[in-house]
Amino acid sequence: MAVGEYPFPDMPPIAGVNIGVAAAGIKKADRNDLLLFALPEGATVAGVFTQNAFCAAPIKICREHLQQGQPRLLVINSGNANACTGGEGRANALAVCDQVAREYSLAQTDVLPFSTGVIGEPLPVGKINAAVPALVQSAAESQWQAAARAIMTTDTRPKGATRQVELDGVTVTINGIAKGAGMINPNMATMLGFIATDAAIDQAPLQALVREAAGLSFNRITIDGDTSTNDACMVMASGQAGNTRIVDTQSPAYQTLKAAIGEVCTELAQMIVADGEGATKFVTVDVNGGASHDECLKVAYAVAHSPLIKTALFASDPNWGRIVAAIGYAGVENLDDTAVRVHLNDVLIVENGGRAASYTEEQGQSVMNGERITIHIDLGRGNCSELLWTTDLSYEYVRINADYRT
Amino acid sequence: MAVGEYPFPDMPPIAGVNIGVAAAGIKKADRNDLLLFALPEGATVAGVFTQNAFCAAPIKICREHLQQGQPRLLVINSGNANACTGGEGRANALAVCDQVAREYSLAQTDVLPFSTGVIGEPLPVGKINAAVPALVQSAAESQWQAAARAIMTTDTRPKGATRQVELDGVTVTINGIAKGAGMINPNMATMLGFIATDAAIDQAPLQALVREAAGLSFNRITIDGDTSTNDACMVMASGQAGNTRIVDTQSPAYQTLKAAIGEVCTELAQMIVADGEGATKFVTVDVNGGASHDECLKVAYAVAHSPLIKTALFASDPNWGRIVAAIGYAGVENLDDTAVRVHLNDVLIVENGGRAASYTEEQGQSVMNGERITIHIDLGRGNCSELLWTTDLSYEYVRINADYRT
Repeated sequence: MAVGEYPFPDMPPIAGVNIGVAAAGIKKADRNDLLLFALPEGATVAGVFTQNAFCAAPIKICREHLQQGQPRLLVINSGNANACTGGEGRANALAVCDQVAREYSLAQTDVLPFSTGVIGEPLPVGKINAAVPALVQSAAESQWQAAARAIMTTDTRPKGATRQVELDGVTVTINGIAKGAGMINPNMATMLGFIATDAAIDQAPLQALVREAAGLSFNRITIDGDTSTNDACMVMASGQAGNTRIVDTQSPAYQTLKAAIGEVCTELAQMIVADGEGATKFVTVDVNGGASHDECLKVAYAVAHSPLIKTALFASDPNWGRIVAAIGYAGVENLDDTAVRVHLNDVLIVENGGRAASYTEEQGQSVMNGERITIHIDLGRGNCSELLWTTDLSYEYVRINADYRT
Repeated sequence: MAVGEYPFPDMPPIAGVNIGVAAAGIKKADRNDLLLFALPEGATVAGVFTQNAFCAAPIKICREHLQQGQPRLLVINSGNANACTGGEGRANALAVCDQVAREYSLAQTDVLPFSTGVIGEPLPVGKINAAVPALVQSAAESQWQAAARAIMTTDTRPKGATRQVELDGVTVTINGIAKGAGMINPNMATMLGFIATDAAIDQAPLQALVREAAGLSFNRITIDGDTSTNDACMVMASGQAGNTRIVDTQSPAYQTLKAAIGEVCTELAQMIVADGEGATKFVTVDVNGGASHDECLKVAYAVAHSPLIKTALFASDPNWGRIVAAIGYAGVENLDDTAVRVHLNDVLIVENGGRAASYTEEQGQSVMNGERITIHIDLGRGNCSELLWTTDLSYEYVRINADYRT
């Protein structure tokens, strides 16, 4: 199941960003499961990574290599997460880095490794390294859709988004692909996002940019509240567009680029939700009127993670009692229940501490019958807002996650 | 579905605690849906209540009446939660208090009202008050099982526990009944617990006792993470056992009584979990080796609330990757993943940051095939421990909570 239609867009090449794909047979034969991004000299890369304490070996290596220089190669495999694999996992990830670096006469630290798939199984380094020459051979400035397909696991469709903007009169292009989320066969979902642009930008502002863009997109989606050992969102900038190089976060060009990359990230994040495991609804939780951003997020997560609300959404049941209960237990200090207002899309369902006088079951039902539902919550105590995107909880979710080994 | 067998125990009368039951036809005809506890002069009552900001009108009234004196009458209805009902809900609850108080020539503030059932529907005061004379008429020192049945909603069985202990050479009896939890037809689960003893104890130490006992029992169970607008746990002490009256929390008698009431509460809490909606497994999450109780609870709740772990439990799948991932994202600062050890019952599954070398799938499978599973987690960084009880996440849970109106 998946919500809506998201045809893969036409994605122009990004000057200087070469993409390779290859089939290493990690989990299935004859399916591309390796992806390579090769960047030119002078390119910059920045990223944000999972906060999971059990983060996978490749994530730890990415953090280290980003601190040691300016990596030029990103190698991603699907089918095996190389997570919870101890010292052997680290050695295996580094062996892949070595192999890829050798092809380009670069150093191990010039390579960033990423893995997604089963947890706790040894990475099949032999298979991967045997496929690296073909991977490198295939590298070209096109094939973005092939790239998006190579990182898919339980995703039902490839995910891509693209934008062009003008920076100081120069057109720059931004392409992004992503995979995830929701738990996947055979173990954990991983959310991976790779965004590339031909803009010229220093690493420091690029790092600020990716943190902010991911914070407002990939960090605002939730399927089941579980966060993976392997999540990463990377932004690569080849620097070949010809724009005046962005050196700090103050320039208008930085703001323009950030807005465009933010749009790409948001579009990808929403595609991940729409393709969430067993998803039949795309749900926006929009919290306003909070005294702080933190309390808005608490309320939004309480609503987005409530199995009671999620099953009601699956049943297209306008069950406002479950929504107010979740708002009530979210942990907002001294919340005045009589000041809270809740709308389903544009239908007022709760005010003055109870069901709105104007509300009818028919109105609520007509909203819930749709595939896209926004739960607007006004806490009535301030000017802060926060937004999350999530899905319902269906039989299919239980089936996917309970039956995968049987 | 429900886990295991919990036959209702033989419960002796508690001297001075009179129980009435009656059928008011709130939701179904010919089913007892009203319960009354009538206490003698000199009795004490204490309780803990939901922290939900949208707490129901009767909960607010209970808090007020407990501050204003020493209530003698508890009246409970099932079928309607009188929650999110605004000013009308409050007036309705007080009207029931008035009616019950009048029968005993007591004041409105001598009555504590409790409701469980549908949210947002007006309480049918007419029906309830019409049944109050029969309720009072039926009052007797027996019928504990009838009491447990009168408060059931989607519970599949009545829940009761009993203990006797010696306080300074005098035998005192403790009976408890409970209902809940998991979301229920038609709206929210409510957890209600009513414990009565013939011990003599002042209100202040009784309040300390109930807070501690509930904290280690009813507050340590979780089905779906949702907490209701109407949860309450009350302890009543009739004072007729003849023991030396307990006046503070320092005496050995206080400790003995607390331990016994704690056992009753724990037994009831575990019955609630075993009868959780759609439950097929009874799961104990036992976290040790934490640097603080807070971090142990964070880990325990992350594991207990993870839909990925809960669906794996439903599938009897020893999916250790999901468990380590949940430990990893629980938010423990600077967790050393290589120091964490995880056992399923007595089978070591995780150590040194990955799957234990000694572990075999067969061992894990044999634990998971059982109905009672303990996930032992040692964080390897301190001496604090915490324990939670929870269930799996089944198709049946989704069915109950998605389909209840259809």
